[in-house]
Amino acid sequence: MTVATSSQQLERLRKVLAEVADLQHAEALLDWDSRVSMPHAGARARADTSATVGRLAHEKFITDEVGELLDELAPVEDELDPESVDAALIRVTRRDWERFRRVPPELAGEMRRAAGIAVAAWDEAKDASDFARFAPHLERQLELKRRYIECFPPAENPYDVLLEDYEEGTTTAEVADVFATLKRELVPLIEQLRDEDVDLSPLRGPFPVARQREAGARVLAALGFAAESWRIDETSHPFASNPGIGDIRLTTHYDEGNLHSLFSSMHEFGHGVYEWGVDPALARTPLGGGTSSGVHESQSRTWENLVGRSRGFWRWFYPQLQSILSDQLGSADEETFCRAINAVRPALVRIDADEVTYGLHIILRFELEQELLSGAVGVGEVQEAWNERVREYLGLEVPDDAHGVLQDMHWSIGLIGYFATYQLGNVMSVQFWRRAVEDLGDVEEQFARGEFLPLREWLRENVYRYGRMYQPRELLRRVTGSELDPQPYIAYLRDKFLP
Amino acid sequence: MTVATSSQQLERLRKVLAEVADLQHAEALLDWDSRVSMPHAGARARADTSATVGRLAHEKFITDEVGELLDELAPVEDELDPESVDAALIRVTRRDWERFRRVPPELAGEMRRAAGIAVAAWDEAKDASDFARFAPHLERQLELKRRYIECFPPAENPYDVLLEDYEEGTTTAEVADVFATLKRELVPLIEQLRDEDVDLSPLRGPFPVARQREAGARVLAALGFAAESWRIDETSHPFASNPGIGDIRLTTHYDEGNLHSLFSSMHEFGHGVYEWGVDPALARTPLGGGTSSGVHESQSRTWENLVGRSRGFWRWFYPQLQSILSDQLGSADEETFCRAINAVRPALVRIDADEVTYGLHIILRFELEQELLSGAVGVGEVQEAWNERVREYLGLEVPDDAHGVLQDMHWSIGLIGYFATYQLGNVMSVQFWRRAVEDLGDVEEQFARGEFLPLREWLRENVYRYGRMYQPRELLRRVTGSELDPQPYIAYLRDKFLP
Repeated sequence: MTVATSSQQLERLRKVLAEVADLQHAEALLDWDSRVSMPHAGARARADTSATVGRLAHEKFITDEVGELLDELAPVEDELDPESVDAALIRVTRRDWERFRRVPPELAGEMRRAAGIAVAAWDEAKDASDFARFAPHLERQLELKRRYIECFPPAENPYDVLLEDYEEGTTTAEVADVFATLKRELVPLIEQLRDEDVDLSPLRGPFPVARQREAGARVLAALGFAAESWRIDETSHPFASNPGIGDIRLTTHYDEGNLHSLFSSMHEFGHGVYEWGVDPALARTPLGGGTSSGVHESQSRTWENLVGRSRGFWRWFYPQLQSILSDQLGSADEETFCRAINAVRPALVRIDADEVTYGLHIILRFELEQELLSGAVGVGEVQEAWNERVREYLGLEVPDDAHGVLQDMHWSIGLIGYFATYQLGNVMSVQFWRRAVEDLGDVEEQFARGEFLPLREWLRENVYRYGRMYQPRELLRRVTGSELDPQPYIAYLRDKFLP
Repeated sequence: MTVATSSQQLERLRKVLAEVADLQHAEALLDWDSRVSMPHAGARARADTSATVGRLAHEKFITDEVGELLDELAPVEDELDPESVDAALIRVTRRDWERFRRVPPELAGEMRRAAGIAVAAWDEAKDASDFARFAPHLERQLELKRRYIECFPPAENPYDVLLEDYEEGTTTAEVADVFATLKRELVPLIEQLRDEDVDLSPLRGPFPVARQREAGARVLAALGFAAESWRIDETSHPFASNPGIGDIRLTTHYDEGNLHSLFSSMHEFGHGVYEWGVDPALARTPLGGGTSSGVHESQSRTWENLVGRSRGFWRWFYPQLQSILSDQLGSADEETFCRAINAVRPALVRIDADEVTYGLHIILRFELEQELLSGAVGVGEVQEAWNERVREYLGLEVPDDAHGVLQDMHWSIGLIGYFATYQLGNVMSVQFWRRAVEDLGDVEEQFARGEFLPLREWLRENVYRYGRMYQPRELLRRVTGSELDPQPYIAYLRDKFLP
């Protein structure tokens, strides 16, 4: 094929991909709006609109035409510098195209419909704290996932197929290895910290919402949030969205009873800043976003925990927070406050967990998901299996399903294979962090001066800008020189939490 | 064709139309968001996204498949009750399809691109109050409009083709007739009212924005705005949007120096309530929206003027407004306030015009547009022609282009043929109103008690719910039993404004 022909094919491919990306941006906005702005009565029409736009984006991508272009571009790909954007574009497009094409449209449609029904059932079941109401929907989700897995070539472990959707290139066995090491370390570590005497009174509040908003705005501004490209709104479940380059949207949730809004704002900032930092040259292609759920989570956890719960950060911000919330924090010193926000306390609900116990929540789900999928644990047994494992890992009794097996929405919308990426994110966050610190020196000293942009720029330069050009494991190797490795994370936890 | 086949065709047609409507809803949301929520730096990506979604909606509609379905449905249409939704659906779809198909995609694309460039040029030219900067863009818009007109069969007047896009079934000659009558009446009426002594001190302000917001919220709530289906935001140029049934969005603009926000809120409410009142059974079809720009404007003017500037309305609301703005309005009585908001004062800028002089602003534009299109007035002469006509109709000297020929954005985005519908709206508003009053009795007494829902329900029942089932003139005939007629409007003005 001549260079001219191949560049024509590439141009045609890019044109289709740009159209698909535009539709995905529209879909992102429709979703953001439905959670932030839309009047309630607009929900039914919105469901139709989102379904149509989402389906068109999918249909436009999985065409024969895209397949033919990819075939025609195969010889070009071999000649291109594998580091080039064009090579990555062809590689990632082929990977996505081949995966999406394997799933019959009927099954994809069925999965969407079943998720819509199951999430409503989950919502009701959780309100009633009654797993039995959700059980048939979980059964249905598992059945659909098994059919989905059958669309792909047999893997060493069927669960690999699910994991591949969220964490390309990482197998169940690899995750299990990492998690086994973590479990071995975390269970005794938690035991050791269990009886620690921590004064939690600084977190008692109430903290007026307007003050929390002011505190959050100051923090975000220092991290790099600027009105030119960012906005933040309030929703019951915080999330980040990116309906187009230059347009990063966060949400948070304010509760007078605690300061979670601060940490959730930093968490969502981490997701947002990753998308913000992707090279604009990758916009309107499949490369123009984060490379995996795990790497995404590594960044939300970086900004929430490695930055936001660090001593350096609070040396800078505690005096400010104390003056914003002088009635509540006037009498607590920085040391007491920092110990309170870093207290290790086994808790029933994952999203309330501290950095040390969080991993066990994930490991529990990772194990149960595999057992459910293989049938080793039946849907009728999962509730008891859950409660037993909470007893074993966290030493807690589950009082009801709402605080147990029904606490997360994920399974209802078919996110099976996803939880693992949360903990992979924690693991990778410290791997990236170590490299950043080697280059940047004493970052805590920088934070103590309110300087966060050096870290942000380092992460942009080394992680964010590549978008999906590198698979997550490849990115990790390039940045850190090593494979997925839980040891830095374990060392970080020991260092931070052990007396 | 058997009934079964025809119902199959109809179902296929409805499926395509639903998809097109969904894309149009997405487009509406993308536009609303870009004006209300989007961070500034998102503009470029948004332009791509909107263009793609808009183009897809258009492409999906003008397919050969839709044309074939319409052909196959032609014999069915003859057998259907012409009053039925199905008959209207086929008729309106055919009308739109035939019009859209006449315009080559290249020309449609060129018109979109040129508008994007011209609106930016207009913005700059207006800021600099320098028509010369905008002149080449106006020339380009006229050239494109002439090419557009050539896509259609020759009409009695080329301007008819443009008018047909906004006010189906009404010709230039008919509008000219109505406007000639109006001009004959309005010019001497204005002369008569010119020297009236009106105390404008109640409108001097300043009126704090928070108070204006509170006043606006009370008024809208009484008219039927409820959070379940409605929202209101602030933008520099107020507008109404409807990105899906059950989802009506207004914007207004607050200026401490005046109370325009109140009237603009009621104006946009009128646009919103028309869309809100369309029968939900027409959703996701081309019938699911207002029938023309003129009828839409008749409703915005109904709620802004016939309701919002009426004595009955203010008998109810003035005491409340006076207590909300006690510092500013404490000393003005209701009579003085009502006279101030209804003062007839020739002004240079259309959007500041009172009910009596407003028509002359429109007539001026309607005349000039035709002269520009035919070449009777060259682009180089339009500035002078504008200023002369303002002298003649309003007795005012135009000090600069920003307050003259550059004041409106419309021409820059290709809205030529559109202004006329504003005044047709005023004319029709009073025609509808007379019928409403025949059925409802003394509406001013109802307003004085804060009761606006009887009027809203009457309008929903008689006007709104039909969506595009009837052409504007047919709707007017069905509701009022008469043709387009400026006499009721003239009588209304005389009755209201003459001592």
